[in-house]
Amino acid sequence: MATINNNFLKLPVSYLFSDIARKVAKYREENPDASIIRLGIGDVTRPLAPAVIEAMHKAVDEMACSETFRGYGPEHGYDFLQKAIIENDYLPRGIKLEMDEVFINDGAKSDTGNIGDILGLDNSLCMTDPIYPVYVDSNAMCGRAGELTPDGWSNITYCPCNAENGFTPTLPTSRVADIIYLCFPNNPTGTVITRAELKKWVDYALQHDSIIMYDAAYEAYIQEEDIPHSIYEIEGAKRCAIEFRSYSKTAGFTGVRCGYTIVPLELTARASDGSRVALNALWNRRQCTKFNGTSYIQHRAAEAIYSEEGRKQIRETISYYMENARIMRDALTEMGYEVYGGVNAPYIWLRCPKGMSSWEFFDYLLHGPHIVGTPGVGFGPSGEGYFRLTAFGTRENCIEAMHRLKALN
Amino acid sequence: MATINNNFLKLPVSYLFSDIARKVAKYREENPDASIIRLGIGDVTRPLAPAVIEAMHKAVDEMACSETFRGYGPEHGYDFLQKAIIENDYLPRGIKLEMDEVFINDGAKSDTGNIGDILGLDNSLCMTDPIYPVYVDSNAMCGRAGELTPDGWSNITYCPCNAENGFTPTLPTSRVADIIYLCFPNNPTGTVITRAELKKWVDYALQHDSIIMYDAAYEAYIQEEDIPHSIYEIEGAKRCAIEFRSYSKTAGFTGVRCGYTIVPLELTARASDGSRVALNALWNRRQCTKFNGTSYIQHRAAEAIYSEEGRKQIRETISYYMENARIMRDALTEMGYEVYGGVNAPYIWLRCPKGMSSWEFFDYLLHGPHIVGTPGVGFGPSGEGYFRLTAFGTRENCIEAMHRLKALN
Repeated sequence: MATINNNFLKLPVSYLFSDIARKVAKYREENPDASIIRLGIGDVTRPLAPAVIEAMHKAVDEMACSETFRGYGPEHGYDFLQKAIIENDYLPRGIKLEMDEVFINDGAKSDTGNIGDILGLDNSLCMTDPIYPVYVDSNAMCGRAGELTPDGWSNITYCPCNAENGFTPTLPTSRVADIIYLCFPNNPTGTVITRAELKKWVDYALQHDSIIMYDAAYEAYIQEEDIPHSIYEIEGAKRCAIEFRSYSKTAGFTGVRCGYTIVPLELTARASDGSRVALNALWNRRQCTKFNGTSYIQHRAAEAIYSEEGRKQIRETISYYMENARIMRDALTEMGYEVYGGVNAPYIWLRCPKGMSSWEFFDYLLHGPHIVGTPGVGFGPSGEGYFRLTAFGTRENCIEAMHRLKALN
Repeated sequence: MATINNNFLKLPVSYLFSDIARKVAKYREENPDASIIRLGIGDVTRPLAPAVIEAMHKAVDEMACSETFRGYGPEHGYDFLQKAIIENDYLPRGIKLEMDEVFINDGAKSDTGNIGDILGLDNSLCMTDPIYPVYVDSNAMCGRAGELTPDGWSNITYCPCNAENGFTPTLPTSRVADIIYLCFPNNPTGTVITRAELKKWVDYALQHDSIIMYDAAYEAYIQEEDIPHSIYEIEGAKRCAIEFRSYSKTAGFTGVRCGYTIVPLELTARASDGSRVALNALWNRRQCTKFNGTSYIQHRAAEAIYSEEGRKQIRETISYYMENARIMRDALTEMGYEVYGGVNAPYIWLRCPKGMSSWEFFDYLLHGPHIVGTPGVGFGPSGEGYFRLTAFGTRENCIEAMHRLKALN
């Protein structure tokens, strides 16, 4: 008699963004004439950079000819992209990486979701709150998160990030955290962490033999000086951290699917016999068994963003989105909203007005000005009373959304 | 203190194809002038079909323009491809599927590896032997396979497929199998299953409330009439089977990455409280949480193989490989080898001559005629003394390999 993984039944029935999509679809069906502006899901809208388009056409043509055709690639990824990553994303910041430390994937969601495969189910977890739901849900699915209680999952220590603490999480004190998820620039709050604050987490991890899962998917949006782009800028981080990067936001690859994960060779964790085991080897084994690499075409697309013109083009797109963020920040602030983020990240995090809950404000914006955002509480208990707007829309839509909001005031 | 998943330490140190690659690389380094013919890994060599190339160029151009740009797709996959699959791969065989039953992925390896996420760790396993290593290894990684003993994994019932039983597995009798992995046309033996034999497995699964994981990655290579292409051709299979399909071999997509999985809506398994839970909903939840869909470009590439010209073009390529298989089969038979497969599948399965073990014959072929194949024992204990050659090479290489073998005789 086949049985299911019962941990799935502990999960709330649906995924945040599917819930939102369903609500919006229903509203649209009942109000077919409503002009809805979507500033909810963090999906980009600008076309791919010309350099990327050119590289993809070239790669497609290579696949048309037996002399240049490529079949299975290395599960780790092609070395030309590993090399480009090391030389462009890390070396300029003084970080030296080996080729074997770079794993190319089909986007950060897969790896942040699957990384738990290589870790014991007995690890205690720590997450900043609010947080990207994949970290929580993927741990809940395998049972590592424990039981869902009114205060959240029993095996997760939540570190609240809210206006009161300036969105700076404090180290867990109630119990030792074995695995810590950090995401900076943060999704959903759009806030960043300083070097000094990040160092506290690295020091904590080294002291307690913990592992930090560092999601840096939004690092390309950092505008201010001296904000760390990689956790490996902090001394000792290679001994305690895995870093996830994505081209989804950096280069608009949400529909292309390519990203990468850094698993340092010196990073180890403990086996049940007390020995130390390198996580790089385990992750390599996992990927060789359950993943067949990312397409060659996607590799060439990613490589193209490191060319001089590619770099310039993606910088322009990022500036476009960050100008959207500025426009929204300014308009919302002027309207009297309490606004956070949007300076080093494409997310605006605002406090819902008049004491509304996150979902109340969601309904209010959908039914009134027809704006779709994301309820803060969907990212965790500390998100209640907050709301996320993304700067990934078109300029026109961002301006129009602000007009509609102003008209409400 | 972070801990690892100790199940990984039970795994043999490396993955079969990585082992082969290492051995070949070493030999090449020591013998730089040796002209090595690779008939080992099941990777295609013919370029993509012109219809596919055209579709990819068009899709890339759509990504260059904000009006037609596509960001995140639906995690399930785009409906145009789901529709093409239902209408072309299933309806002509009398199988009706709903859109929600078709999950587009980045290749069958990911889904055959990850499908275990939704199932209990207490399920007993049954696998035909020899078999594609991913089924075994992915179950070993989560602990479901039990302990590795000299007779194989303790929680796997092996059903030998060998020359003595005509490569027809018999139903497990020693204990009830909750989850059964079948792959037909079979990798590695290249043999097929008749409708009557497949019905026995479906009936067994229905009787014992088991689930069959049916890997039909090679169905496009079936040449003979009346061999089932899909398990859903057997009555009742929708209540007991998940089917995996891949474009890797059907359309040469090993470097493109696209496939799909069918999880019927009526398929259920038991929860610990005794209730029945639909696996479709669980798999959807898993994919929404840990996967972000396959690229839009890959979707359009796959769709193109269902056009009239696309269909014709991929059929030509399959004929090319199957002619390779015929050439190798005939030559090997003439040389006195005991040869199986190669009629409805691109794999030739032969008995190693002179009582050699699989790895002995591997070394013999690498060091002598410089031919790389795959040791049968790498696919499981019943593969010992057998050897796999693939028909995916170039015509020239297949002929040359046969010449070299003949010269040895």
